[in-house]
Amino acid sequence: MRVEPSATRTLLDRLVCERLDNAASTAALHALRARFAAGPAGMVHLDANSIGPMPAEVPARMQQVVDEGWRVLRRRGWNERDWLDQPRNLGAAIAHLIGARPQDVRVADTTSVNHYKLLRHALAVAAPRRVVIVQREVFPSNRYAAEGLAHAGLAEMRVIDGLQDLPQALAGGDVAVVSLSLVDYRSSERLDMAGLTRLVQGHGARVLWDLSHAAGAVAIDLQGCNVDLAVGCGYKYLCGGPGAPAFLYVSPALQEAAWPALCGWMGHADTFAFAPAHAPAAGMDRFLVGTPAVLANTAFAAAADIWRVVDPAALDARHRSLTDTLIRLLDEQCAGLGLELASPREHTHRGGHVAVRFEGAAPVAQALSARGVVVSARKPDALRMAAHPLTTRHVDLWDAVQALRQVLHSGEWQEPRFAAPAV
Amino acid sequence: MRVEPSATRTLLDRLVCERLDNAASTAALHALRARFAAGPAGMVHLDANSIGPMPAEVPARMQQVVDEGWRVLRRRGWNERDWLDQPRNLGAAIAHLIGARPQDVRVADTTSVNHYKLLRHALAVAAPRRVVIVQREVFPSNRYAAEGLAHAGLAEMRVIDGLQDLPQALAGGDVAVVSLSLVDYRSSERLDMAGLTRLVQGHGARVLWDLSHAAGAVAIDLQGCNVDLAVGCGYKYLCGGPGAPAFLYVSPALQEAAWPALCGWMGHADTFAFAPAHAPAAGMDRFLVGTPAVLANTAFAAAADIWRVVDPAALDARHRSLTDTLIRLLDEQCAGLGLELASPREHTHRGGHVAVRFEGAAPVAQALSARGVVVSARKPDALRMAAHPLTTRHVDLWDAVQALRQVLHSGEWQEPRFAAPAV
Repeated sequence: MRVEPSATRTLLDRLVCERLDNAASTAALHALRARFAAGPAGMVHLDANSIGPMPAEVPARMQQVVDEGWRVLRRRGWNERDWLDQPRNLGAAIAHLIGARPQDVRVADTTSVNHYKLLRHALAVAAPRRVVIVQREVFPSNRYAAEGLAHAGLAEMRVIDGLQDLPQALAGGDVAVVSLSLVDYRSSERLDMAGLTRLVQGHGARVLWDLSHAAGAVAIDLQGCNVDLAVGCGYKYLCGGPGAPAFLYVSPALQEAAWPALCGWMGHADTFAFAPAHAPAAGMDRFLVGTPAVLANTAFAAAADIWRVVDPAALDARHRSLTDTLIRLLDEQCAGLGLELASPREHTHRGGHVAVRFEGAAPVAQALSARGVVVSARKPDALRMAAHPLTTRHVDLWDAVQALRQVLHSGEWQEPRFAAPAV
Repeated sequence: MRVEPSATRTLLDRLVCERLDNAASTAALHALRARFAAGPAGMVHLDANSIGPMPAEVPARMQQVVDEGWRVLRRRGWNERDWLDQPRNLGAAIAHLIGARPQDVRVADTTSVNHYKLLRHALAVAAPRRVVIVQREVFPSNRYAAEGLAHAGLAEMRVIDGLQDLPQALAGGDVAVVSLSLVDYRSSERLDMAGLTRLVQGHGARVLWDLSHAAGAVAIDLQGCNVDLAVGCGYKYLCGGPGAPAFLYVSPALQEAAWPALCGWMGHADTFAFAPAHAPAAGMDRFLVGTPAVLANTAFAAAADIWRVVDPAALDARHRSLTDTLIRLLDEQCAGLGLELASPREHTHRGGHVAVRFEGAAPVAQALSARGVVVSARKPDALRMAAHPLTTRHVDLWDAVQALRQVLHSGEWQEPRFAAPAV
């Protein structure tokens, strides 16, 4: 790992981290930390890329929805609460974080199911083009969605080893859609959304961006980049809760260009008319399918109410300050301990987390967990640390890197008790 | 409405209903009522066909999963809790209610999404047959799923006006799958699962049964009827909570006969290998797609733990006693008030609820709600009353029918305040 020459600047210490936490430029966001529940004392959670922190209001809201909603109102909840509107309301609350209009985002189903829906939508509008391009190195579920389509004869899958191969893969004029992860789930490398979208569209194809490892961490500009389709995870940085519903976005021009692949009553133009024939709803509502997940959506709503007041530029600046600090701390404190930075050094080229490569990533993650620092590992050798811009403090990063240094220095991660595989 | 001649038997009264509640034959089930949260005093909920009653443990379990799981464990919850196993565990807990083996049922996604998955599965195994038969009068979402497939060119939809048309619709030998609702969502008419499954299979086609208005209310025997595919709602009689995940079943012979339509990491043979190529999991797991909905599944688990100890035959007997009583009370107490029984009189021909036809069904439902009796209406004229076999008492039915009698007799349902449309 590269160490910044100490001659050129003073090493960071905990006091400097404290000062960074109180910097005026990010004070407004730092204040939102109070709207999240405090984790257990002495623990540092750097796992917002897996499950984001819990808004403080969640327990009370869950009590309310089960007691007032389920126990007392039961079916009347559909009339007397916002249950049916949650997919729209949640989408509207997070839309600005990804540079979308409120009406162009919905929260429903899982990322994988939404991925399927939008690949099919892209194929429907692009016929007779039927090629789906996917990256070889990508979060596997994204590839499986395309493989399933190819296996069923609904698409032809073209796998590219790297983006350098994209222009040639597009050249034949047969590509319907390119499925890209904005941020690599291991290295955290962030792609050039504007440039790649332009490239793809220049070949008459559409692009489907998976924003899972970016939304709620860094600023995204779907409209500015003229993005066609996007999906993303609700339970990572967006803090929707474990297994929360996911979001999906379709550009206004494409929303009504085809029927949705999955037709269900919540996507009907008039759900409660119980019309015998399907008529897709206007706009994004047609991408809804089954009954809203009321309990899960209620948890997500606590986060959505925080997101409503968050300025994406400030969020991005705070995330940059945190992760730049984390990288510098890794440089300074873990030099010579065998870590290799896997993430780009430039914030604009990084997503939510910072990853280092280390052969013992999985047991190191276990050893850190035993010391109260929660991170994650991904095969083969990625150790991922994800700061959440609304809750992580610079001093937390100092403490975490000190723990990492001790784990590596002592060699304790090689003890058999840390060999259990991590999810 | 037919009135039983009073000469042949004494009219039911509240005391007789009380005695029925304490009948030895259903005492074991009646005792499970204590495992559900009491509704508000003086209210009668006959809306288990919309949202079933809440298990008493739900509030504590939700507190636990958000506090210990989300706030404290965060990503470690995937390792240290049963979050990843919930789709299997929940399916196993309810399997006996529908006559399935524990390993053949999964809980995930919505009924509509599962409906889509299994229609596609049936089409995949039946190729080159490509006809999907649907009923004209069916819960609309079921039809929309088939319409979406037809619109996309993935199937040909054949609509039958009634089951009398089914033999002819099957005769061409081109039918892949017949999509049938076991219970009509309006009239509660229950179809002959065994006979129709035999008929369909006799023509080389498969049948997909929607069990939404039956599962958790009456005994179902998927194995005994040799059923191919089934889906059903989790939030009605099964008490999974508002918008709970749905269940799906595929017969052992068909599970691995094709790739699933929607491929995702939770359906991979080795999810955490992050293998680049998709390999569908063995058995039912391949029908899982995205990340489990942990919060929703945790609520459902409280009900699942009750279902584990429920004998389906006893459940069926209790439901029969309740709904036979309800029909008799309607006969005796509402004679001459303009109601027409829409449901069959024979319990084996009925699903979970009892429906009457009445031109003012929607405002009557509103007026009943104002009197503390929660029922539901469905266009054009169905008034639905659904007893839950684990929580509804015969005396509740007495009280509800008395309220209905008063609403009808007084004509108060015609007041403008009850004109609001119900969901």
